[in-house]
Amino acid sequence: MIIVIKSGTPSVEINRLSQEISSVWGITPEIVPGKHKVIIGLIGDTATLDPHRIQELSPCIEQVLKIEKDYKRVSREYRHGQASEVAVPTPNGVVYFGEHHPVVLIAGPCAVESEAAIVSTAKRIKAAGGSLLRGGAYKPRTSPYAFQGHGESALEMLAIAREASGLGIITEVMDTADVSRVAKVADIIQVGARNMQNFSLLKKVGAQDKPVLLKRGPSATIDEWLMAAEYIVAAGNPNVILCERGIRTFDRQYTRNLLDLSAVPVLRSLTHLPIAIDPSHGTGKSQLVPTMAKAAMAVGADSLMIEVHPNPAKALSDGPQSLTPDQFEALSKELEMVGKVLNRWPQPVAALV
Amino acid sequence: MIIVIKSGTPSVEINRLSQEISSVWGITPEIVPGKHKVIIGLIGDTATLDPHRIQELSPCIEQVLKIEKDYKRVSREYRHGQASEVAVPTPNGVVYFGEHHPVVLIAGPCAVESEAAIVSTAKRIKAAGGSLLRGGAYKPRTSPYAFQGHGESALEMLAIAREASGLGIITEVMDTADVSRVAKVADIIQVGARNMQNFSLLKKVGAQDKPVLLKRGPSATIDEWLMAAEYIVAAGNPNVILCERGIRTFDRQYTRNLLDLSAVPVLRSLTHLPIAIDPSHGTGKSQLVPTMAKAAMAVGADSLMIEVHPNPAKALSDGPQSLTPDQFEALSKELEMVGKVLNRWPQPVAALV
Amino acid sequence: MIIVIKSGTPSVEINRLSQEISSVWGITPEIVPGKHKVIIGLIGDTATLDPHRIQELSPCIEQVLKIEKDYKRVSREYRHGQASEVAVPTPNGVVYFGEHHPVVLIAGPCAVESEAAIVSTAKRIKAAGGSLLRGGAYKPRTSPYAFQGHGESALEMLAIAREASGLGIITEVMDTADVSRVAKVADIIQVGARNMQNFSLLKKVGAQDKPVLLKRGPSATIDEWLMAAEYIVAAGNPNVILCERGIRTFDRQYTRNLLDLSAVPVLRSLTHLPIAIDPSHGTGKSQLVPTMAKAAMAVGADSLMIEVHPNPAKALSDGPQSLTPDQFEALSKELEMVGKVLNRWPQPVAALV
Amino acid sequence: MIIVIKSGTPSVEINRLSQEISSVWGITPEIVPGKHKVIIGLIGDTATLDPHRIQELSPCIEQVLKIEKDYKRVSREYRHGQASEVAVPTPNGVVYFGEHHPVVLIAGPCAVESEAAIVSTAKRIKAAGGSLLRGGAYKPRTSPYAFQGHGESALEMLAIAREASGLGIITEVMDTADVSRVAKVADIIQVGARNMQNFSLLKKVGAQDKPVLLKRGPSATIDEWLMAAEYIVAAGNPNVILCERGIRTFDRQYTRNLLDLSAVPVLRSLTHLPIAIDPSHGTGKSQLVPTMAKAAMAVGADSLMIEVHPNPAKALSDGPQSLTPDQFEALSKELEMVGKVLNRWPQPVAALV
Repeated sequence: MIIVIKSGTPSVEINRLSQEISSVWGITPEIVPGKHKVIIGLIGDTATLDPHRIQELSPCIEQVLKIEKDYKRVSREYRHGQASEVAVPTPNGVVYFGEHHPVVLIAGPCAVESEAAIVSTAKRIKAAGGSLLRGGAYKPRTSPYAFQGHGESALEMLAIAREASGLGIITEVMDTADVSRVAKVADIIQVGARNMQNFSLLKKVGAQDKPVLLKRGPSATIDEWLMAAEYIVAAGNPNVILCERGIRTFDRQYTRNLLDLSAVPVLRSLTHLPIAIDPSHGTGKSQLVPTMAKAAMAVGADSLMIEVHPNPAKALSDGPQSLTPDQFEALSKELEMVGKVLNRWPQPVAALV
Repeated sequence: MIIVIKSGTPSVEINRLSQEISSVWGITPEIVPGKHKVIIGLIGDTATLDPHRIQELSPCIEQVLKIEKDYKRVSREYRHGQASEVAVPTPNGVVYFGEHHPVVLIAGPCAVESEAAIVSTAKRIKAAGGSLLRGGAYKPRTSPYAFQGHGESALEMLAIAREASGLGIITEVMDTADVSRVAKVADIIQVGARNMQNFSLLKKVGAQDKPVLLKRGPSATIDEWLMAAEYIVAAGNPNVILCERGIRTFDRQYTRNLLDLSAVPVLRSLTHLPIAIDPSHGTGKSQLVPTMAKAAMAVGADSLMIEVHPNPAKALSDGPQSLTPDQFEALSKELEMVGKVLNRWPQPVAALV
Repeated sequence: MIIVIKSGTPSVEINRLSQEISSVWGITPEIVPGKHKVIIGLIGDTATLDPHRIQELSPCIEQVLKIEKDYKRVSREYRHGQASEVAVPTPNGVVYFGEHHPVVLIAGPCAVESEAAIVSTAKRIKAAGGSLLRGGAYKPRTSPYAFQGHGESALEMLAIAREASGLGIITEVMDTADVSRVAKVADIIQVGARNMQNFSLLKKVGAQDKPVLLKRGPSATIDEWLMAAEYIVAAGNPNVILCERGIRTFDRQYTRNLLDLSAVPVLRSLTHLPIAIDPSHGTGKSQLVPTMAKAAMAVGADSLMIEVHPNPAKALSDGPQSLTPDQFEALSKELEMVGKVLNRWPQPVAALV
Repeated sequence: MIIVIKSGTPSVEINRLSQEISSVWGITPEIVPGKHKVIIGLIGDTATLDPHRIQELSPCIEQVLKIEKDYKRVSREYRHGQASEVAVPTPNGVVYFGEHHPVVLIAGPCAVESEAAIVSTAKRIKAAGGSLLRGGAYKPRTSPYAFQGHGESALEMLAIAREASGLGIITEVMDTADVSRVAKVADIIQVGARNMQNFSLLKKVGAQDKPVLLKRGPSATIDEWLMAAEYIVAAGNPNVILCERGIRTFDRQYTRNLLDLSAVPVLRSLTHLPIAIDPSHGTGKSQLVPTMAKAAMAVGADSLMIEVHPNPAKALSDGPQSLTPDQFEALSKELEMVGKVLNRWPQPVAALV
């Protein structure tokens, strides 16, 4: 941590401040006199120090600069620069998420609506190269009057679809009280964008052992997102997948959110965790999904999460951003072309096509 | 709801669409032929219709415009244009929040730290004209390694401070599992900014009977905020106070958030609910708090929520935005001057000064 | 245009309003009575009507919805759904920008620094497959104390580099007084992001006949950007290329701007104009440029504009986002792989490799 | 400036870097070894150093932190902590802008429309306590098809209104070619929000001697705004008034922009320049203007700029945000009440009422 002292501060105050820091926190300050300003470098274990508290120690402090990152366990340095992988056992075999693995396709409807629909959708997704089935049992909706998901019965339908298709299941949990119930069915537990800083929930999913897909909040910075992941890992669960799904900007005329694709190369240098992209929520419009899915491949995402619904016009939620199974199949073929060029496409599946 | 048809659409398709809408939703469409474009007006109970689903009915639809608001119970129209008031019983008497009442001062530390500190702070706040004591027992923190609040023991300290000062208590709940525990001590339950769209929590606080102060999420639109309030009211609890505490913008160099003071006059025309302003979180800097508190009075806020800590430099959280009790007392006198001019200052307190 | 009337408005006022509109603007209003609200559809040539002026006609108006777009000449409809192309004659032949042409590579330094450097850089760019040379003579800089470009002498150096390499030249104009001077040397005139709404400048570049590359302002909506293009086209110059270069968001920690790649598919449906992407300004970091350039290919950009400097560490401006000529050459080979899969790579160049 | 070195960097590289900095820029680096990271403090005149160029010197650099501000002449320190004042001679006497002067009221229509209207409006404004008349001759409009102002003839009308009312004149300049023409009539030249970073224009208005009111760009940071002011002052004109007029955020449903009132206390600590607030553009709605104007008084603005039009419904631009002369008069009386409490209301005018 670095303290910048206002110009014109008497040296007696600078010394007093140094001594206070040293005595209160046991940290050795190093005073560096500049031509215009004095700076004080804090040497020692300053990661847990709150810069705001330092700021309050003296009115002569101009600013306090934190040069250490707040996150540790999710940082790339924590694994000595190596990527981690998240292994997810499914009936069809273990699916690996990570930068040294092929891209994992996750697909399915926004919400689970009926057993027949989810089973047939799952089979179509499997046939088109998907590895996991998404489908909401508990739905966070802006309006209390909108469809809130079928809850427990939807979890049962997901279990049936898992059995029928061999796909792994990913579904969202919204309430700490539902975590163990969801974990029984899900192969990956999703924490949604609106709950990215629901710290009670993060601690709870960190204390169980299913992998967690953590969506980025629509106005969360990269650092806040990584700190949310740190909550889960610090609670004992190292299997976290980050999922970018669009952020909020000043222009919401043509897209629901703005998909931040540069987050992928940025995160690569900061964290070892695998990274997924959700172009469906990221744009909110089905006609934009295939293009943005290809771009997500191009930036090196480890997984794509795509909404697929047998009849988007009749979907109980998020219809306009869903592909039909036919469209998903066509997209999968386009992705294969790009994925092969970039060496991120699964070889065996390619062979089967 | 209004459907705008793409120019050049054959009338046979427009008729087909009209019939589909009529047969599926029982709504009468009215076709209005314009010079350039045809529009279809949907007449009937369209409030629960999802415009996205309409959009999917035909590729000839250019856009679907929703002209009804999604919220009902919190709308100004719901009370025929009249403001509502929230009455909060405290040991010192009932405190009223509402546009026809004097401004209510809420003050206290970010987090409850010790019994002695919270009791003495409460007494200072009472003496300076405050009506409620704020203090966090459960703290949402960006980092899992930061102080998370003293939890249940902090609730006990708040109960003691309530007894000692006569102030009502407001404190935050973060987890559905804690709602009843918090409701036992609190006179007002706070839902924090990060949980504004934690819908499980909103339903839960809507199902108990203590008033709820609902903070605006840092990137929530006015409409999303009102929908969050609608969740609480729809669950049975009409006593909601809205609290603006700063939104997120592109410039975060000098203030933690940007306090949206225009939200107050905007909300007045949309909702009957009382409105509070939190200039402490809204700026993140104690030296900006008094100025912005006066401005909050000027825009007609019904309540101000201000962080006060006996020794901000040693606060376990949010020290830099806290006033000392002396500063709060000085601010209260400044507010009185402005408040009297605007007829929003409590007469009896004025008499005691 | 559609007028939504507040509920409870007496029909006498609605009739009065209709008659006023009819008499003042000669537009036929169509009254559509809904169950909750009355709407009035305005039939006729309403494109130039200002919704704000309608709003003021009566206090009973809840909102005025404009359903016509403000832009005409740049709209996709204006060319009956067909893309336009911009043809740029250069010493090496005509370069075409458009969705039915191969991707055009534009490269070069932020600012022109010396004749030797710009000539050698131009040759390297030519060898790596570039078609146009960028280089600033007049530089918009946040600080008055920063290097402002070499001005006229830089224009001369660009002319020499054009001669030596055969590349076309693109350079920015900032002042209406410099337009004719810049147009003498440039094959494409650039209007920078900060000047996107410098309407005097837009009119001026619209009144000369060199093609114009119009960068998106960092906080411009898609609609505002298209309106800025409309200024140029309305002034007589149909040869406009739109260039996305990153927008401003709440998170500026790791990227200078956020590259909005979804703008490409969005613009495709709105406008016939060609679209370029600038991943250098879009990220501000050279290490992110190759990845985002590939993604820009994947979303279907018609051109990429990339900063290349022989020695980025010594660049007088924007060094950190510049590639070296070697890095650009490597990137060009990566782009070729992706471009061939997507049928957007120039065949002859591919043959030469 | 401070350089943070990546952990694990060999000391030989750190020494090499230090020597390069020392030899190239003549600056003495001070190496501060921390427990986790080494930092290098640069001592000497580093204000003009570009941190990006330092960054490129070595791959071992984690980040470069600039602790000096880029602006000098507009900084509060430049005047040893004292506020400056801007004196504007008008027919009615010298008007002073500054924190030790009463609030200056500027009012008038968005655009000058006719001689009769501007003269009568000016007289009403004078009678209600205004000191300067605003009115656009050259109007920046999003659409090329919207009214662009009456140009030179509007300047003549302003001159007549000045004569008739005694008010000073403030009007906008958009093109470097118009500066001297505008300066002949205007007592204050306005640089509009969209031109805040039109650096050619800033230099030009800095090279003439009328005071300049510089509006904040809708997505300009405080620092960028101050740098724009620095351009004017560095070009020789110290008489700059800053004017906040609302910034762009994610929520544009109910207000055109979000008025950043906290900018006033923030700027007080950074700059000596006077500060004005424009609540008309800041909200875009006339019904919000009075409330936000009072709040602007409360935060200590030195001037308010308010749109007044004799018949807002017929205004050629920005009607919906204009007050009528009657409304302005009523607002002036409300402002007087608040202004007197805060000691910012002109005594003589108060005496005349």
